[in-house]
Amino acid sequence: MNAITLRLDSQAKEPLYEQIYQYIKSEITIGRYPYNTKLPSKRQLSAYLQCSQNTVQAAYDQLTAEGYIISKPKSGFYVCRLVGIISIKKESFVPQKQTDSKLKCKYDFSHQGVDLYSFPFPTWRRINKNVISEYDTDLLKTGDPQGDINLRYSIADYLHHSRGVNCSPDQIIISSGTEFLFLLLIQIFERDKIYAVENPGYEKLNLIFKSNGAEFRSIALDEYGMIPEELFKSNADIACVTPSHQFPTGVIMPINRRLQFLNWANEKAGRYIIEDDYDSEFKYSGRPIPCMQGIDGGEKVIYIGAFSKSLTPAVRISYMVLPEPLINIYKEKLSFYICPVPVMDQKVLCQFINEGHFERHLNRMRNIYKGKREALVTAIRSLLPFAQIFGANAGLHLILKVNNGMSEEELITSARKNGIRVYGISQYYFDNAPANRQPLLLLGFAALKLSEITEAVGLLKEAWG
Amino acid sequence: MNAITLRLDSQAKEPLYEQIYQYIKSEITIGRYPYNTKLPSKRQLSAYLQCSQNTVQAAYDQLTAEGYIISKPKSGFYVCRLVGIISIKKESFVPQKQTDSKLKCKYDFSHQGVDLYSFPFPTWRRINKNVISEYDTDLLKTGDPQGDINLRYSIADYLHHSRGVNCSPDQIIISSGTEFLFLLLIQIFERDKIYAVENPGYEKLNLIFKSNGAEFRSIALDEYGMIPEELFKSNADIACVTPSHQFPTGVIMPINRRLQFLNWANEKAGRYIIEDDYDSEFKYSGRPIPCMQGIDGGEKVIYIGAFSKSLTPAVRISYMVLPEPLINIYKEKLSFYICPVPVMDQKVLCQFINEGHFERHLNRMRNIYKGKREALVTAIRSLLPFAQIFGANAGLHLILKVNNGMSEEELITSARKNGIRVYGISQYYFDNAPANRQPLLLLGFAALKLSEITEAVGLLKEAWG
Repeated sequence: MNAITLRLDSQAKEPLYEQIYQYIKSEITIGRYPYNTKLPSKRQLSAYLQCSQNTVQAAYDQLTAEGYIISKPKSGFYVCRLVGIISIKKESFVPQKQTDSKLKCKYDFSHQGVDLYSFPFPTWRRINKNVISEYDTDLLKTGDPQGDINLRYSIADYLHHSRGVNCSPDQIIISSGTEFLFLLLIQIFERDKIYAVENPGYEKLNLIFKSNGAEFRSIALDEYGMIPEELFKSNADIACVTPSHQFPTGVIMPINRRLQFLNWANEKAGRYIIEDDYDSEFKYSGRPIPCMQGIDGGEKVIYIGAFSKSLTPAVRISYMVLPEPLINIYKEKLSFYICPVPVMDQKVLCQFINEGHFERHLNRMRNIYKGKREALVTAIRSLLPFAQIFGANAGLHLILKVNNGMSEEELITSARKNGIRVYGISQYYFDNAPANRQPLLLLGFAALKLSEITEAVGLLKEAWG
Repeated sequence: MNAITLRLDSQAKEPLYEQIYQYIKSEITIGRYPYNTKLPSKRQLSAYLQCSQNTVQAAYDQLTAEGYIISKPKSGFYVCRLVGIISIKKESFVPQKQTDSKLKCKYDFSHQGVDLYSFPFPTWRRINKNVISEYDTDLLKTGDPQGDINLRYSIADYLHHSRGVNCSPDQIIISSGTEFLFLLLIQIFERDKIYAVENPGYEKLNLIFKSNGAEFRSIALDEYGMIPEELFKSNADIACVTPSHQFPTGVIMPINRRLQFLNWANEKAGRYIIEDDYDSEFKYSGRPIPCMQGIDGGEKVIYIGAFSKSLTPAVRISYMVLPEPLINIYKEKLSFYICPVPVMDQKVLCQFINEGHFERHLNRMRNIYKGKREALVTAIRSLLPFAQIFGANAGLHLILKVNNGMSEEELITSARKNGIRVYGISQYYFDNAPANRQPLLLLGFAALKLSEITEAVGLLKEAWG
């Protein structure tokens, strides 16, 4: 074989055995040590490199385990045929941060996003460390299709105590984002079902229904949410609503209207309500109104929730509670879908809830968001006297009606020129927005710092005032 | 207010401030300290509890942050109204291990699963610790819909060097499991497309197509994979194949047949091939055959891969490479779907690949699985002389033809009675399996220990011999 040109560096970051391993691997891979080359014995190589025989042994073990060399008894180590060995060369490539055109503006009133400075990273890190365990073979297996049973127990507890949802863990399906839950629901229901969606409403719903060939009707809202009479005459079977905090208008559906919807659903077999409780954790005043699932007892309501607002949208964990007959259909037809949330992430979240960190985090965030909302309302009242605030004292966004003669588009553009991004409500209308509508803007405040809010509203005043 | 009955325990696991916090929180929650109750001053309470004022301060800060109490300047701390505060009481519930009826048998030749003793947990734990950082705001935002750009670069590198796939990171979509990729593909293609699936084949494909209302034809196989003539006369537009290691039969499609399929796809606009390369990392002998995507240059082939076999099925990361025209359709119609893989998990995997651990792990596992396959083949040849092995020297399973006069069902049942679970190939036929077919079994060996294999085959000999 060729001379060994390696010099060990005891100051290097890599341990000595790793340096030997890397050197020999590379010589084999580039063909300098061809098939069946005999390597020097451990004694020879350790003497030559002036290291211990154990160091050489560790390098040879590694090379053997990965299939580069083979030990022949009473003879020594030989280079293998490199059949099937995988070698990933790195292209020269500079790691990138996600590019984000939003960065170019100074302040962004996006409704997506959470507070960027209050996530309990040390706790999350500690729990991750606990969970990644060589003794837990669950981490090497496909998990339960409905999601980790312990996490489902924790979610059932949480929903029961904080939202009044009645369910057993067996009715819960854990998935990755609200969209994937809707993909499952479309498959659970017969293909001839018609869905009713709030107009304006969650902008992705119509895209999901369209791209899956599901029929839907958009139903107008009044000051209490979806208008029952419009639903009743729509021919729809399944009503998708956000009663806790309508998206985007921010209204809370009163109890008597909730009952009207539940009555409608009970009048006919096959009718259901999908209750999306997307940011219900954050309500800053007034008595809580029970969720529709809790009023109904879970016969006619599919309850949907997520950890996107309450923890971080990067965690991608959502869930739904299905009524008994629908969970049976799911089990029969759809349990072949593997739960898309990694088993490890489910265990981390479960421990996070069970150790009480989720409750604490929610209450802390509730106070922080309450403070941000108050600062925003105060700044708007003092700096934008020509604007009115709509939406309940809840959630992570509010609605602004600006009465200065500008159109929605003009408001957005002039704010943008002054470094502020605001969002018109028009994009949330599924058909065209009513022509005579006054301009309404959606202002999210979760991701802004408390200290930035007054300045951001000041810049809006300059743009619009 | 009521007397404070708390006694601090300096030996307890919880720090002192936490004990004060928990005590007062509980008194408030159960109503013993009603709204507007004034708490003792920090000086008073610290004197009474014999701890430092800083300890009381820390407890009061925590209670304030979570909205239980409020500080009134120059007056003191008062109990807040508990509007919206969330309290999760734990139901009495014993944590459960996933129940698994498979545990009841002694050895399980399931094709699902990986080696349970070789996952690099310490490395995975270290990288997780690195990635969970308070300075990385990506962890608090919705990520790129196609998946983390750095991970897509790493996957493109890997595919290029180890599989000969030609693609840019921009053509890659990261998702959670092969099923979700198929859900996207069904939405990318027009609804009138007809899919061709291998028969026998991946058992979930027909379920996915059926439950999404997509039309499909099942196409018979011969000893080289899907029969081209059967595909040609089927009227299908999109052929779903596993050329590297057909599932379940284990055959490798030869190059000339791959070219036949590519020619078929090129003959007509709208025709595509979906190449599922599910366990291509593991090939133990012979020269590698280039993947169809690489032969074609990426015009007509959608390439699908996953980390389920190469790392662990619990990690839930899969990907596909789309030809240019299809990625454009995706961007226009479907990029509203948020990538279902948590941002953190994507970053961990990216670092795992970039630091060279993935390459090492693959080569190590390849050697381990090669050893297990050899042990299984040896045991079968010596103990089951009436059985024949089919399937290429690759992957994590092989096919056994048992010529002892028993039917497939009898083979499975008698093995089961002797503590062994084996799987018949019939369940992978989409229509009824051909009536005159000889019994074929699918034997997965990845999750068995090397030392168990001979004994497991011995038990099969007792059952069948």
